[in-house]
Parts: sequence; structure tokens; C-alpha cells
Amino acid sequence: MRMVDVIEKKRNGHELTQQEIQFLIKGYTNGDIPDYQMSAFAMAVYFQGMTQAERVYLTEAMVQSGDQIDLSQIDGVKVDKHSTGGVGDTTTLVLAPLVAALGVPVAKMSGRGLGHTGGTIDKLEAVPGFHVEITNEEFIKLVNTNKIAVIGQSANLTPADKKLYALRDVTATVDSIPLIASSIMSKKIAAGADAIVLDVKTGSGAFMKSLEEAEELAKAMVDIGNGVGRKTKAIISDMSQPLGFAIGNALEVKEAIDTLQGKGPQDLHELSLALGSHMVMLAGKAQSLEEARAMLEEVMQNGKALDAFKTFLSSQGGDASVVDEPSKLPTARFLIEVPAKQAGYISAITAEEVGIAAMMLGAGRATKESQIDLAVGIVLHKKVGDAVQAGEALVTIHSNTENVAEVMEKVYGAYKIVNEKVTAPTLIYKEIQ
Amino acid sequence: MRMVDVIEKKRNGHELTQQEIQFLIKGYTNGDIPDYQMSAFAMAVYFQGMTQAERVYLTEAMVQSGDQIDLSQIDGVKVDKHSTGGVGDTTTLVLAPLVAALGVPVAKMSGRGLGHTGGTIDKLEAVPGFHVEITNEEFIKLVNTNKIAVIGQSANLTPADKKLYALRDVTATVDSIPLIASSIMSKKIAAGADAIVLDVKTGSGAFMKSLEEAEELAKAMVDIGNGVGRKTKAIISDMSQPLGFAIGNALEVKEAIDTLQGKGPQDLHELSLALGSHMVMLAGKAQSLEEARAMLEEVMQNGKALDAFKTFLSSQGGDASVVDEPSKLPTARFLIEVPAKQAGYISAITAEEVGIAAMMLGAGRATKESQIDLAVGIVLHKKVGDAVQAGEALVTIHSNTENVAEVMEKVYGAYKIVNEKVTAPTLIYKEIQ
Repeated sequence: MRMVDVIEKKRNGHELTQQEIQFLIKGYTNGDIPDYQMSAFAMAVYFQGMTQAERVYLTEAMVQSGDQIDLSQIDGVKVDKHSTGGVGDTTTLVLAPLVAALGVPVAKMSGRGLGHTGGTIDKLEAVPGFHVEITNEEFIKLVNTNKIAVIGQSANLTPADKKLYALRDVTATVDSIPLIASSIMSKKIAAGADAIVLDVKTGSGAFMKSLEEAEELAKAMVDIGNGVGRKTKAIISDMSQPLGFAIGNALEVKEAIDTLQGKGPQDLHELSLALGSHMVMLAGKAQSLEEARAMLEEVMQNGKALDAFKTFLSSQGGDASVVDEPSKLPTARFLIEVPAKQAGYISAITAEEVGIAAMMLGAGRATKESQIDLAVGIVLHKKVGDAVQAGEALVTIHSNTENVAEVMEKVYGAYKIVNEKVTAPTLIYKEIQ
Repeated sequence: MRMVDVIEKKRNGHELTQQEIQFLIKGYTNGDIPDYQMSAFAMAVYFQGMTQAERVYLTEAMVQSGDQIDLSQIDGVKVDKHSTGGVGDTTTLVLAPLVAALGVPVAKMSGRGLGHTGGTIDKLEAVPGFHVEITNEEFIKLVNTNKIAVIGQSANLTPADKKLYALRDVTATVDSIPLIASSIMSKKIAAGADAIVLDVKTGSGAFMKSLEEAEELAKAMVDIGNGVGRKTKAIISDMSQPLGFAIGNALEVKEAIDTLQGKGPQDLHELSLALGSHMVMLAGKAQSLEEARAMLEEVMQNGKALDAFKTFLSSQGGDASVVDEPSKLPTARFLIEVPAKQAGYISAITAEEVGIAAMMLGAGRATKESQIDLAVGIVLHKKVGDAVQAGEALVTIHSNTENVAEVMEKVYGAYKIVNEKVTAPTLIYKEIQ
């Protein structure tokens, strides 16, 4: 088999066989197939797409390119959740203890990554003492005991995807639904999930700006998941403004604690229940979404969700007393309110701008080498649809430096205030089974 | 400027600026832009094409990537001819002395290359003593004196094209009209031609199988040539069967000698006159194609074309007496006729099969390292449309080994004989100005 023939076949719009796709991914991973052939192939895929069968073969081949985490010693159906990313997305911190409280095993492999705030691990490290440096055996034991544990990402998870993604990033071949979908799904599958709930974001703050694109990606991922025998569901949710109020690591931990008690921001609360209901259903713990939702609301109210969070934190070295005393979390030296310059109604909050403002404060990493400041961030007081008086605070900036002029400018740039009443955006656009 | 942005712009179907294309070609030539970005770009061009302006910029950038031959010291309009390649194409050997006899300066830079037979230089080396190892000064002096000389190709002619072509070859991005057209034209322009006549082949033995594709390529090249200020014309000619009778180096030299005397195969004679007429016109030596053609026929008849060939050969060390005594050319030890197995009419001669048969005999190079046998080859006795009796010779194999069973099989595979009368194919389909 010659790579040039595989490229030409795809270029001409023909369907590749499983053998051809395995040849491609194996060869690329071990270096037999050079970058310059792979990038031409990726561009051909950009134009010609991939059939459902090809997407499944590609995902499987990428899964097989590296370690596959064996979670078989964990009792129950391991359900993982993945979000395509946005600003202020605290759902993982809420969902993990929430569904664990119902006996759904959460065996989470997580990373740090780049972005407006840190990854799930960074956020959790805002809890003094918490760490993810545990062995695989400890990890499995913790999940079996507590139904919840988080471990750092294996270095050798889907190396084919890592290599391919880095190449796509510099060859203008990122925006391809089949390639995005198989990239995400391969990581989830290699990490050992039996079932997967996807939160596909849409809107100005999301990678998929339009609902149509988000729906296409969601369907592609659901079809791949089901195609490889992992039950998969997706929700398409709004990212036209930041989710919840908090953007920042410790700030989001605090927000998660509120939400686990049923006192969180309306949108984060609702999205957590929606995603959580699917997780509970997929884990076989409820017969209907309504039943699952009622169960989740119950553990919020009776304190079991919060207890699960405490147990989880202390089991991995964390000081669980932060849950009852959030003031023990890292706090910023300066809290600076940003007042509205005019009265009216909030018609838009550009999520990306707010995210960049948080990153400027030090909440996220611009490069792999950046140090995160766990204390800093932004807390929104007004969301789209809210009325505001001139001088009333739009957000509070949590900063460790006093000079936040540029950050304030970003915030003002993100907020749009109009005279007419504005309807709050829909939170959940669609559920895809 | 970032290459990834240039790739994305092309991918999205937008027109690149001259600056962007120069950045691309300069960066690729000097190694700043890696192969993997260039191959993704080439695939994007495959799908999105290039505008006329982009093609001109690309051609110019490739011309500027290396040496540009300065022929300004040669008097008159230097007209070059280029064929897109086929089997048994002896036109260069005919045309060069033919138009030189009319005072059109032929300053030919030529190569060896791979293929069914050798390149123009290999063919000429069948003449004992002939060589192309002359200095640029001698070359220019010879053209000014004799109106004809051939020199080996500069090693640093269009290095961008060399590098890009090698990349396209392994990334399934060869079949792109804008890339093919700018590749060919950049070499001709860098080699110093003032005007260019293109012979674009079509049919089973050509790179462009269909007339539509051939026409598209011809138009693309003519537009580029005129776009960069070099007068360019194209003829679309038939390559559904080999051109002329001879396929092989010395055999083609002999056929060229016949044709220069007006005694060549009908198709080679006609195509030489058609291409030659355009060359004479572009050189400003005639007012109309009819006048040019009459002038060419005259120098065939009065011996001046043959004299020009003799002068050319002896000026570059060759034994010109071969022209009057072709038996002095290298001859093969075995002449083996391939008899028709049945009577009928020849309906097809697959040019590519006959070409491979010639290469199997040693007439051409399969790899750069292959040694060419100048004596061997195939001479056709029957062409499409001809009647044939059972047992009558279809071709004569000129071989230096007695065992030609496989070659004969190729020949039988190439020839199709039917019962019904067959019309000979059209030789010249179209002229594109």
C-alpha cells in the first residue's frame, strides 16, 4: 500500500477501507508516513469529508495508536462527559460529585491545557493539598470506594491524535467535522469510558459559532461513539455568553460548591442537571430523564452531592473544609468592580473577550510555560437579559495587581447595553441521541 | 505573514496577492516553509484552483527562484517549443533545424529525464561525437552563427518548481491545471524564451487523456505565457497512438532526417509543419501561417533544413556524415518482425504500451541510474486506420538481445485489429492563441 494512492483515493471522493485507514494512522504514528503526506491527506478530507464508516475506522485507529486505559476493574458503567469548550464552564466540577453521589462511577482522566482558565486539574488544585499524582491502582480503588477520582492524563494517550492535531493546527486543516469528531472521541474512548455525554457549545464564545455546525459536530461524535459501541448522547448548549458567573480557578471551585447545594447560577445549575440526567440514565441508574433529574435534585438538596465532593477532595489530599469555608480557597488581593457606564439591558457579553480578560489577570495559560494564578478571575453580576443601572457593577475583577485598566477595557468591550428589553438566550438548543 | 493563513485563504477560495505568492515560493525554496505546509497548500489549490493573476504570480515567483538564462546577446526572437510528452515524439529533432534554416534562432536548453526513450540530448548523442558540454559563451556564439545549438539544462533552473514537483508527486497533487501550467511555463521562461509554442498532447498516450483537459491546460499555459509578456501559442495534437513510426533514440534521429527531407511519416511531417509555422510566425519571419508553412516546405525540399542539421551536429562535435549515411548511427543486433495474428484494420495502438515495450528493450530510463541503449527501439509499420494481412509485420523490434517474447507480448497488447474499416484519428484538434 502506498500513501500517495490513499491520498488520491480520498481526494477523488472514494471511501477508504479500514485497512487503508489503519495503514495511514499506524504509519503516521511510527514515522513511516511523513507530515507532508498527512497534511495533504487532511486537506483532502477537509474538502471530501469522511463517511460514517471511515470516521469509526479513524477513531479506532487513533485509539489503538497508544495506551488504552483499562477501567474494567471498576464496577458499573463508567460515564464520561466532554465539553467542546467555552468560557466559565464549571460543569465538570459540579457533575463529577453530583452523579457520583448517585453511585455513577466517575473515573476522570484530565489535563491542564491552555485557555482562559486552567483545566479541571488546575481548578481542583485551588483546594489546598489536592493532587492527582496517584497510581492507576489507587485511582481504580478510589473510584470503587468513593465513585469518584481524578487522575492526570497518560502521556501516551492517542499519540496519533496528538501528532495529527499539531499538524492540522499549522496547515489550516483544523475545521473539519470528521477530524474534530474523531479527535475528541478517540481521546474519550482511549480513556476507557463505557458511555459518553457530550456538551457541544455554540455561539460567539464557542469553536462552533453556528447552531448548524454545532449540530453537525454533535451528530458526528454521537455516531462515532455509538459506532464503536460506546453509548453516546449530546447536548447542544449556549456559549454566546460565559456560563455561570465565575471565570477563574478558585472562583469556579466556589461556584461549583454553590451549585452542588442547588444555589448555583441558573444556567450552570440547569446545564448540570441536563447533562447529569443523561449520565445517570446511561449508567443505568434511572429509567427516564425525569427520574434521573429528580434524583439529582434530591442529592443537591440532601447534601449528598456536597458530601461526595468532600470525600473526593480529601481522598486525594485536599482540604475538604474549603467546602464549608470557601474563604480558605486562594483569594485575590484586589476586588475591583466595573460599573456600567449607562443604564439599560445587557444584550450581549462576548464570552471570548471576558475569557481573555481573565487570562490577562493570570487565570489561564497563554503558553505551556505560563504560571497560573489560581486566585484571580472575573465574577459576572449581570448576564444577557438583565437590567442594569448606570454605575451598577457589571463584574467584579479579582486581581493580584492593582492596575487593571486593560482588563476593564476588555470587560467594557465585551458588554453591550441597549435601551430595549432583551430576552435571555436559550440555554439548551437540542439533545442528540 | 504566516503560511497557515495563506493556506486557509486559498482553502476558503479567496484570491492570493502577489506578495502572498512570493512569500510562499521564496519561503519554500529557502526552507522556511516546510513541506507539510506546502503539500496542504497544493491540495487546497487542487480543489480551489487559481485565478489567472495567481497563476502569473506563481510562475514569476518560480522563475525568480533560480537562474534566469540571459539570451539577450542572441539576435532575433528566441522561440522555444514544448511538448507535454508522448511516445515517439521526434518533433524537437525535426523542428530545431527546420526553423533554424529560416533564420529563427533556436537556443535550446534540454535535459535527459526519465521515460520511454531518452530526452532530446540522449537522442542527439546517438550521433557519434555529439555533445552538449559547451560553455554559455560558446552556446550563444553558436546560435548567433548557425541559428541553432543545444546545451544541457542548468542545475539551478526553477529550483522552487523542482522541489514543489517532487512534493506533488508523492502527495497526489500533480493533477492540478494551475500547478502543471505554471510548472511548465516557469521552466520555459527561466530558460530565456521570448516566445513559446506548446504542443499539448491528448489521448490514451498523453498525460491529458481527454480533449477537454488538454484544452484547459493549453489555455492555462497560453494565458500564463501572454500574462508574463512572452507570446505563446498552443496546438492540441493527438497522442492516442505513437507519433511517427520510430520509438528509440537512433531510430528517431533517422526518422528526423527523413522528415527534414520531406520524406517523414505523414503525422510527424504534418505536426512539424504546424508547430514550425507558429514558431516562424512568432519569430516574425512570416506574415501568415500559410506563408510560414510554404517557407518550411521549401527548406525541406531545397535541402537547407538538412544542411542546418548537419552544421548543428558538426558544430557540437557530431559526425554529420550520419545524415547522408544513417547506417553510421548505432544499430541493434537483432531486427525482429512482429506479424499480425489476423487480418483486418488497426483500430487502436495504445501508445503507453508501445512506449513501455521500447523501455523494456533499453531505449529509455526507468530510474535516473538506468543506462540507455541508443540503438534499440521499435519501428511501427502499421498505424490506426491501416489495413493489415495476417502475417504481415505490425512493427519491427530493434533489439540487442534475442529474447523479446515479453516485448512482443506488449506489442500485441497494444495493437487492436477489427474487421470494419477504421478512420485514422485527427492529428491536430485545435490551435489556441
